Amino acid sequence: MKHRKLKMGMVGGGNDAFIGAIHRGAAVMDNLIELTCGCFSVDPEISRSSGQSYFLPDDRIYDTYQQMFEHEMSLPEEERMDFVTIVTPNKWHFEPAMMALERGFHVVLDKPMTFSLDEAKLLKNKIEETGLILALTHVYSGYPAVKEAKARIAKGELGKLRRVYVEYTQGWLSDRIELQGGNNAGWRTDPKRTGKAGCIGDIGTHAWHLVEYITGLRVQQVCADLHTFVDGRPVDDDGAAFLRFENNMSGVLMATQIATGEANNIRIRVYGDKGGLEWRQMEPNRLILRWGNKPSEELYMGNNEYLHPLALWNTRTPSGHPEGFIEAFANIYRNFALTITAKRKGEIPDERMLDFPAVEDGVRGMQFIETMVKAGFDNDHKWHNWLD
Amino acid sequence: MKHRKLKMGMVGGGNDAFIGAIHRGAAVMDNLIELTCGCFSVDPEISRSSGQSYFLPDDRIYDTYQQMFEHEMSLPEEERMDFVTIVTPNKWHFEPAMMALERGFHVVLDKPMTFSLDEAKLLKNKIEETGLILALTHVYSGYPAVKEAKARIAKGELGKLRRVYVEYTQGWLSDRIELQGGNNAGWRTDPKRTGKAGCIGDIGTHAWHLVEYITGLRVQQVCADLHTFVDGRPVDDDGAAFLRFENNMSGVLMATQIATGEANNIRIRVYGDKGGLEWRQMEPNRLILRWGNKPSEELYMGNNEYLHPLALWNTRTPSGHPEGFIEAFANIYRNFALTITAKRKGEIPDERMLDFPAVEDGVRGMQFIETMVKAGFDNDHKWHNWLD
Amino acid sequence: MKHRKLKMGMVGGGNDAFIGAIHRGAAVMDNLIELTCGCFSVDPEISRSSGQSYFLPDDRIYDTYQQMFEHEMSLPEEERMDFVTIVTPNKWHFEPAMMALERGFHVVLDKPMTFSLDEAKLLKNKIEETGLILALTHVYSGYPAVKEAKARIAKGELGKLRRVYVEYTQGWLSDRIELQGGNNAGWRTDPKRTGKAGCIGDIGTHAWHLVEYITGLRVQQVCADLHTFVDGRPVDDDGAAFLRFENNMSGVLMATQIATGEANNIRIRVYGDKGGLEWRQMEPNRLILRWGNKPSEELYMGNNEYLHPLALWNTRTPSGHPEGFIEAFANIYRNFALTITAKRKGEIPDERMLDFPAVEDGVRGMQFIETMVKAGFDNDHKWHNWLD
Amino acid sequence: MKHRKLKMGMVGGGNDAFIGAIHRGAAVMDNLIELTCGCFSVDPEISRSSGQSYFLPDDRIYDTYQQMFEHEMSLPEEERMDFVTIVTPNKWHFEPAMMALERGFHVVLDKPMTFSLDEAKLLKNKIEETGLILALTHVYSGYPAVKEAKARIAKGELGKLRRVYVEYTQGWLSDRIELQGGNNAGWRTDPKRTGKAGCIGDIGTHAWHLVEYITGLRVQQVCADLHTFVDGRPVDDDGAAFLRFENNMSGVLMATQIATGEANNIRIRVYGDKGGLEWRQMEPNRLILRWGNKPSEELYMGNNEYLHPLALWNTRTPSGHPEGFIEAFANIYRNFALTITAKRKGEIPDERMLDFPAVEDGVRGMQFIETMVKAGFDNDHKWHNWLD
Repeated sequence: MKHRKLKMGMVGGGNDAFIGAIHRGAAVMDNLIELTCGCFSVDPEISRSSGQSYFLPDDRIYDTYQQMFEHEMSLPEEERMDFVTIVTPNKWHFEPAMMALERGFHVVLDKPMTFSLDEAKLLKNKIEETGLILALTHVYSGYPAVKEAKARIAKGELGKLRRVYVEYTQGWLSDRIELQGGNNAGWRTDPKRTGKAGCIGDIGTHAWHLVEYITGLRVQQVCADLHTFVDGRPVDDDGAAFLRFENNMSGVLMATQIATGEANNIRIRVYGDKGGLEWRQMEPNRLILRWGNKPSEELYMGNNEYLHPLALWNTRTPSGHPEGFIEAFANIYRNFALTITAKRKGEIPDERMLDFPAVEDGVRGMQFIETMVKAGFDNDHKWHNWLD
Repeated sequence: MKHRKLKMGMVGGGNDAFIGAIHRGAAVMDNLIELTCGCFSVDPEISRSSGQSYFLPDDRIYDTYQQMFEHEMSLPEEERMDFVTIVTPNKWHFEPAMMALERGFHVVLDKPMTFSLDEAKLLKNKIEETGLILALTHVYSGYPAVKEAKARIAKGELGKLRRVYVEYTQGWLSDRIELQGGNNAGWRTDPKRTGKAGCIGDIGTHAWHLVEYITGLRVQQVCADLHTFVDGRPVDDDGAAFLRFENNMSGVLMATQIATGEANNIRIRVYGDKGGLEWRQMEPNRLILRWGNKPSEELYMGNNEYLHPLALWNTRTPSGHPEGFIEAFANIYRNFALTITAKRKGEIPDERMLDFPAVEDGVRGMQFIETMVKAGFDNDHKWHNWLD
Repeated sequence: MKHRKLKMGMVGGGNDAFIGAIHRGAAVMDNLIELTCGCFSVDPEISRSSGQSYFLPDDRIYDTYQQMFEHEMSLPEEERMDFVTIVTPNKWHFEPAMMALERGFHVVLDKPMTFSLDEAKLLKNKIEETGLILALTHVYSGYPAVKEAKARIAKGELGKLRRVYVEYTQGWLSDRIELQGGNNAGWRTDPKRTGKAGCIGDIGTHAWHLVEYITGLRVQQVCADLHTFVDGRPVDDDGAAFLRFENNMSGVLMATQIATGEANNIRIRVYGDKGGLEWRQMEPNRLILRWGNKPSEELYMGNNEYLHPLALWNTRTPSGHPEGFIEAFANIYRNFALTITAKRKGEIPDERMLDFPAVEDGVRGMQFIETMVKAGFDNDHKWHNWLD
Repeated sequence: MKHRKLKMGMVGGGNDAFIGAIHRGAAVMDNLIELTCGCFSVDPEISRSSGQSYFLPDDRIYDTYQQMFEHEMSLPEEERMDFVTIVTPNKWHFEPAMMALERGFHVVLDKPMTFSLDEAKLLKNKIEETGLILALTHVYSGYPAVKEAKARIAKGELGKLRRVYVEYTQGWLSDRIELQGGNNAGWRTDPKRTGKAGCIGDIGTHAWHLVEYITGLRVQQVCADLHTFVDGRPVDDDGAAFLRFENNMSGVLMATQIATGEANNIRIRVYGDKGGLEWRQMEPNRLILRWGNKPSEELYMGNNEYLHPLALWNTRTPSGHPEGFIEAFANIYRNFALTITAKRKGEIPDERMLDFPAVEDGVRGMQFIETMVKAGFDNDHKWHNWLD
């Protein structure tokens, strides 16, 4: 391929959805990707006006994603989009993703990966079959401090892991705002569009992923307690679980969207027999390490020599110049893009490039949702095995 | 009774135990109580040298508590001790407490109140029979910010309560230090001296009490997951529970003594449909209130007019002059002393004076331990009813 | 002009300078600007390899900025760059900026605007003469929480302002690392490239600008105390000043680059007779408001209804999804671009678009430097008038 | 002397002044001191009712301090008070203190030590002549984290000290509340009772003392800027200063009582060429250490082995059980009492016991006030030598 930026198409993410702009900003930030085309809404008018406001030529703004895939395929390879970013409600993840893969486009997908576990497995098979790349935007694993945490644990600095607490508290669904319309609450609380789970699928999956990403250990059994606190809501809006991991690590997971006054408070604490660590997304540039017999340490992200290469690789600024949510997204996009580029050149991608959530995370995420929903409303059985 | 300070005797709390000095400092801080006598150790030599270092006359330092009660009873009322503070390992709470009550002495007891639930009920009966006062040092309920939290919730400021998270993380038992001797770990990890529970009895009870104190709601059902992470330790050193409360409030409780690097991190968050609050003991003078549609607020303790009278009553300093753990203890002692004094004068104690943990809290605390131990190691049943 | 993105050229900012990537990422984040051409280094080889890594065509990568301006002028308007971003050492701000303005290009300049006050005045004259737009990247005024602070003060919420403390502490120049080469310390400590001031010019100007931006009040007199703590360094590396502002506000400014262990800690506190506020860049999404008779408030940035339109305008994420340094930069670029676009369309730019630092800030910044250097080493006179 | 507690008399500190209860609680907390007598107010009725509420016998409650000294001298040594604590407005520090010293009583005095520098020198001479002990309650030097800071610096951990920032911000005098009566603002803003300085004497002295205590370096020159922001107030209510210390350390001191919304925010940062530290009184149990090339450290007070013996000596609780303002006061009382006791036994007091502010601190404190007042309103001269 000619030396050029990767060309991104989008499904969803029009001007009526804040997350579209986040994806676009993150994708282009590192000068590796450009927005080339898109079908930005189920409503063709919104798609068109959105695409125009992104300065796309008219013939690269599509009414349907089917149309988009068809037309892009007809273009010369140098002009054609290289990958598609899908930022629709869960119900409409699978079909465009599969269609893209079948036509040889790489894919970026918002989490949870699909509407059902079955769909997730089909995507996984397709990825294995095609060798294409799928990135799943479990954005919190994109933060450099989270990378640092993972690297420290992998090096054994905390010793044998025993206990983890992960929590994700939001308050925006404390009232039944989905009835008001005009916000992101509608599809997220509608089982026909979001899937079996509400809160657990929307943010519980992020919490679960963060633990497995940082500790490298997998959940094996779950004891869960899900709730729907807001009357009339057809999906859970709160839940907690005890988690049994490989290697006898024990976890508590808390996720809620009815914690009035909380914004987006995802936080993790991990304790081993030698030390502990803590990270909190709302102060994302700090990682706290705790020790039994010496002062706790605060690692501040940036270009500090004491940081692990994995964290430094995912950092853009000198220490003290905070990076945030969009940069965490951008790290996923950058590593995804570098991986694709390396493969095109016939190179083996650097391990640091490959460090982004992929299709396996998506399958496990759907397993997590299915396991949690089954376990969470079952008052008779305490422990439930992970559903494969 | 003549206008004088209340006279305190002690069982336990000699120079080999840090907690004795905490109790003594807290008891005398408000100029209402003086240390009069004590049996400070099972070892008569330690008792004697301790008593002397507290400037007690030789004839008020005792070798056994039996001896103490006997001799104090023989003194004129004006000289005799008024109450006894018992700060021994759990195994030796009941006997001296009962002996004191039988002789008409009020009692201050460390938590958990007794070694077994049966003992707790006997104490409760004795209290009801005698009308004497028993204060249980669930010290965290003595902090003014905790009083403020309770008062705000009682006024309905948070709306209908839905969700509570309470946690108590320590790391000092991350290694099996009880084998080293010379520290407080020995009896706390020995079921013959501490009782059925380790971590759950020692600190889990504090976490449980804090929730019921602040919210005014009682646990009804428990799903628990207890652990012993350190090999060879005969009691739990970690545990978590889902709690079902009256009025459909749902809770997660976490208590651990193997969270390497954590000091004494008890923290609570409560969310209702109108607002939320947070308090953390290691920054005890701050109470955070959170709201859905306005900025979160930080209430700093001290003489601020915006604080509730219940908090102000338990405050000694102007705002910005931090109070701490000993002052929280002192609030229990002060209210206990004022209650006794009011009763002696034939007055009805002010509601604010009566606001200290008492024998009912002690009985419920023992029920909590028994329920948690039963539920925590049972892998078959999910939910367990509160054991009365 | 055709409906297209604004085309950016760059002077400086090659792969050997971190700040280049920051500018590029910030410029393109909001999909209004694209990088079109540049002369990225005084070293033509670095310029070329940098430009190629940004995927520029060879004929838009230049060896000198003179060459760039000449060639770009020869292109059709539709292809030609619209503005130039200059991120060179201070010594080389003026010449390319003036050259750009003379050819009708808008300019983005890093602070301090120029090497000398005289140069700054010439730029100002040229701007007035041409009506072109110049944005000065006093990045800290780009943070939404800083906008919120400005708006609250403008509305009078703090009452009459009395006292301001502003500080900017860094530690990276605690040793004489400029002798090691290969870092950004070299030109910053060389009076031939950085100008009369070291620390005061590099970061003191940011602190000064932050005060005037937030309070809307101007410094009138200065009493300063500058230091060079590191032996052999030919410019100041630390300084403090008392500031007398219009309307009797009094300030203390502290700036240092030898505060070992500090990263990039710019922080401001303002107190009026009704309230106070605090902002700290290393936790940039929070603004603290303090009051005499009610709890202090924490405003968290994001899409919170309680925030001022000026803050919301400069926000990309829902509350709890932190934005950072690059987004603050991006706010300057976005407002700059929107202003240019509005003017091209013959529209009057929205007040919110015009809210970015401009040439007037640059002139005052140079006056600040000259005043501080004069006052800071003068041991005889206490107060110095602002040098116009 | 017989083995007994030290007997304390008080001048001032009746029920109409909060600080009296602080002193009494702090004095008795460690079981070394008892309140024996007092003249608690200029108003004999208040003195009497106060003394009674402290359970003193009627013949040990005095109408005047002259009467107190006279009568106490007439008692047998075993019954007589050992020392007097004086907690009156500044105007009435010297006379009772001198009277006490002349009769052989040790003295505890609130800061600033006297109304004038001349009085301070007389007290110093008297102390040297008599060998009696005077403790000055610069309470902030009593915090264990402050002791730790001092010890770390003394060991050279921060390297050569360069830069210190100390600040003490309060907001309670933001309005002219002294006109309302019934509060502590009255005498503090009345030059006839408080002395030459308002804010600078009341809290500026604490800030100054904290620096000299922690760094061990003395101020040599001052450039100051004092203000009276509240109309009609006859003393300063705000001030700042540049400080030149021995050994070329440079400081900025800020003290204000008109920072609306601030409670009692005394905070210090010290930077040397190897590291930096920070302490903030409103979170007093933490000490932050910062380093150039490794993570910053948070030392949490308590029984942590990593703490210096000087900090551990002044600590009562295990780590995570916060101590506060009253404990800091109690450390001064305890060390004062242990020093007296050691001397009475003919022993040389342990260095840790002697670590409390004494008469030399009081003299320097008055020199600080006189220097600051002279320098602070002088617009002509920049630097002022320390007034001896």
